[in-house]
Amino acid sequence: MKSTVNVADFIVNTPTDSVPEHIIHQAQRSLINVFGVALSASLDPSVEALEKIGSHGNQEATVIGRSRSDLNQAALINGYLAHLQDYDDTHFPTILHPSAPIWPAALAAAERRGCSGSDLLAAFAIGAEVACRVAMSVHPWHYDLGWHITGTVGGFGAAAAASRLLGLTVEQTVSALGLAGTHAAGFREAFGTNGKALHAGHAAASGLRAALLSANGFTGPRAVLEGTRGFWSVLSPTGHDSSFVDQLSDTKIDWELANNGLKPYANGVVSHPLQDAVIELRNSYEIDPVDVTSIEARVHPLVLELMNLSPVVGLEGKFSYRHCAAVALVDGAAHEAQFSDARVNDDQISAIRDLVHATVDDQLSEDEVHVTIRGANFDYNTHIPHATGSPQNPMSDSQLESKYRAIASEVIGTSQTELLLSAVWDLPEEQNAQQTIALAGE
Amino acid sequence: MKSTVNVADFIVNTPTDSVPEHIIHQAQRSLINVFGVALSASLDPSVEALEKIGSHGNQEATVIGRSRSDLNQAALINGYLAHLQDYDDTHFPTILHPSAPIWPAALAAAERRGCSGSDLLAAFAIGAEVACRVAMSVHPWHYDLGWHITGTVGGFGAAAAASRLLGLTVEQTVSALGLAGTHAAGFREAFGTNGKALHAGHAAASGLRAALLSANGFTGPRAVLEGTRGFWSVLSPTGHDSSFVDQLSDTKIDWELANNGLKPYANGVVSHPLQDAVIELRNSYEIDPVDVTSIEARVHPLVLELMNLSPVVGLEGKFSYRHCAAVALVDGAAHEAQFSDARVNDDQISAIRDLVHATVDDQLSEDEVHVTIRGANFDYNTHIPHATGSPQNPMSDSQLESKYRAIASEVIGTSQTELLLSAVWDLPEEQNAQQTIALAGE
Repeated sequence: MKSTVNVADFIVNTPTDSVPEHIIHQAQRSLINVFGVALSASLDPSVEALEKIGSHGNQEATVIGRSRSDLNQAALINGYLAHLQDYDDTHFPTILHPSAPIWPAALAAAERRGCSGSDLLAAFAIGAEVACRVAMSVHPWHYDLGWHITGTVGGFGAAAAASRLLGLTVEQTVSALGLAGTHAAGFREAFGTNGKALHAGHAAASGLRAALLSANGFTGPRAVLEGTRGFWSVLSPTGHDSSFVDQLSDTKIDWELANNGLKPYANGVVSHPLQDAVIELRNSYEIDPVDVTSIEARVHPLVLELMNLSPVVGLEGKFSYRHCAAVALVDGAAHEAQFSDARVNDDQISAIRDLVHATVDDQLSEDEVHVTIRGANFDYNTHIPHATGSPQNPMSDSQLESKYRAIASEVIGTSQTELLLSAVWDLPEEQNAQQTIALAGE
Repeated sequence: MKSTVNVADFIVNTPTDSVPEHIIHQAQRSLINVFGVALSASLDPSVEALEKIGSHGNQEATVIGRSRSDLNQAALINGYLAHLQDYDDTHFPTILHPSAPIWPAALAAAERRGCSGSDLLAAFAIGAEVACRVAMSVHPWHYDLGWHITGTVGGFGAAAAASRLLGLTVEQTVSALGLAGTHAAGFREAFGTNGKALHAGHAAASGLRAALLSANGFTGPRAVLEGTRGFWSVLSPTGHDSSFVDQLSDTKIDWELANNGLKPYANGVVSHPLQDAVIELRNSYEIDPVDVTSIEARVHPLVLELMNLSPVVGLEGKFSYRHCAAVALVDGAAHEAQFSDARVNDDQISAIRDLVHATVDDQLSEDEVHVTIRGANFDYNTHIPHATGSPQNPMSDSQLESKYRAIASEVIGTSQTELLLSAVWDLPEEQNAQQTIALAGE
């Protein structure tokens, strides 16, 4: 099986209007999510370091929430921003984060060439399909060896989306995949450092570069996946399964974006059921936090294993189930703002943290919880069988919009936030996507 | 052993004047060689593809033989150019090519910050030492798995040289090594494509970026080599030997640049003894090619295995021992010019190729040959025990200068070629290296 050539054929020859409507809708959702989380991340001071190393002559491309830049720099920074808060999307079967590496390459290519909204959304869907399937072909061996799959596999998706939008031939797309694949990088030792988000930026920029170079005659390896010294052999030496990739030759495929989830809270998923439960009770019964005397939870064992810190700085709040429950009660949310140093040290939040108690229940699944909130005059219970954002309970469009609005409006204001949101929903009817993309700039 | 911290300590705290004089001399030789081969490569049309994707606002840095660019783009293109003809240096114990990834990062950092010639040469020597020792720590497991060691390990050397020149602390240098290491990339499936030289460009640019980001507060993994999911574990899972790296903590080390060789001919090393022999006889006896009736060689078996093509296009000439012998006789050389389509199809060269015959001698070593050149009135023999450029018979400074002059002058003319050569030899006395570097531009 000539796996790589088949992938290139899928990238180039899948008609835009053959991508199913519900997959295009998933592409729109992931773009709204990326714009939101990258806008929120654009306030992080580390972005300035990335801006400093770049060139400032050519302002061809939008950097989300920041001033314009050249294509390569825009892809690098947008990939970094999209992944910085670990608040982006997740392909459940592989824990690949497809949007952070792929959207920046697609957006940059669209800004270079111009294309319709439909073509842009289809290019992302196709890039994500390629990346998810390459990820599935090496999962779990590749991740277990220590690779950060978003950094490594993301570049294939970025090259795929950019190749399609730049109008490459199958032959050129083979080279683009080859050049992206041979620059796949990022290991898990970088988790907990700026390096992790930079992996996504590298994948985006490297995939875009691969497509641009290939469009100008550069050659790359012709069998980047299946070659003797190629991706499967070198980056997944203990195993791979080519069938996930080879299925792209089938007339009809099950699109993987259907298995791509969005996160409602900017912390690890293990406490998401607890946060869901507290927010549900808070909203249903209009609970005033000052009336609460205890929050009792029965939780999966991982909650106490991974999230039992007593937080002193903001980041530690992400590893405290008590803090997550407290901000859920007071703010009804858990965006990056809920994990600031100030919020962790807020007197009211700190007092409520002390009212939160969890007991382990081995019978619960990882995305399940039972919660009781008590006051002098009330006693409210709920059971969350599947947390929001889990495969069985995806975020609704309305939940996604609330998340997006909360985090985007702090950076670009309410009016631009709404304009950008409408523009993404309207993309399928848009003749030129450039205006929409530019709305995400500062 | 905290390997990574020790490496950073070596990078930051080795005094410039403690680098031995013969190692500084090797650094100068490798720079002359890089300028020559990159200038020659700067005529290759593929460079334009790289230039097109870049930004053109900031012209802070020299691109060898081309117009100026920003730092990142300069490092990328210079790394690509230095490796494009496979005519750069080779660290014999590991087949790492140290100069292509490291010199571009060092040059760019020197252009950003300004530094003395001594500091620049010492930074390269220290970067090369780090890269060679990381390479030794994973050789042969890493290469055998399919990694292109110049692409992967090169980034450590680039980050090391740039960190030193940018004045980073030990702590910052740890992060720079971490950010470079986690972006290590390039597998051997890309050999024979533009991707191979791009690996060196990526390593240069990524190492430089790592140092620049770290200088501005970016964090990277703290144990990039020895960490559980770090370089040794992920990119060399079948084995590594940390002792080569840990020796950097010793008071006195044997510097690895002493084991770094330069190539006299722009083709694979197996036919170099044959080329040496023909050139020696041609020059010693002032042989007129028209008088020659046969060239007979006794060669190592690999020569017939790897170099027995009948060339039709230029590149195939590199895989024809007959062509290599023919241009040795007529041109006394084997630079890129001797492997053009025109030269391969030249009538005189083609006729002489037919006079060349080789027989295998199992008793010979790989860098050995016996050659007889006959004419109607003569019969000249020679034995080359060790080819030029082999560990036992390094290129002399004068041979290096001839190579450099032949390939550089075609691009920047005789006068600039001589100015640049003198400037590199004079670097140890130069207060600011920026002028010297700029001489390598177009």
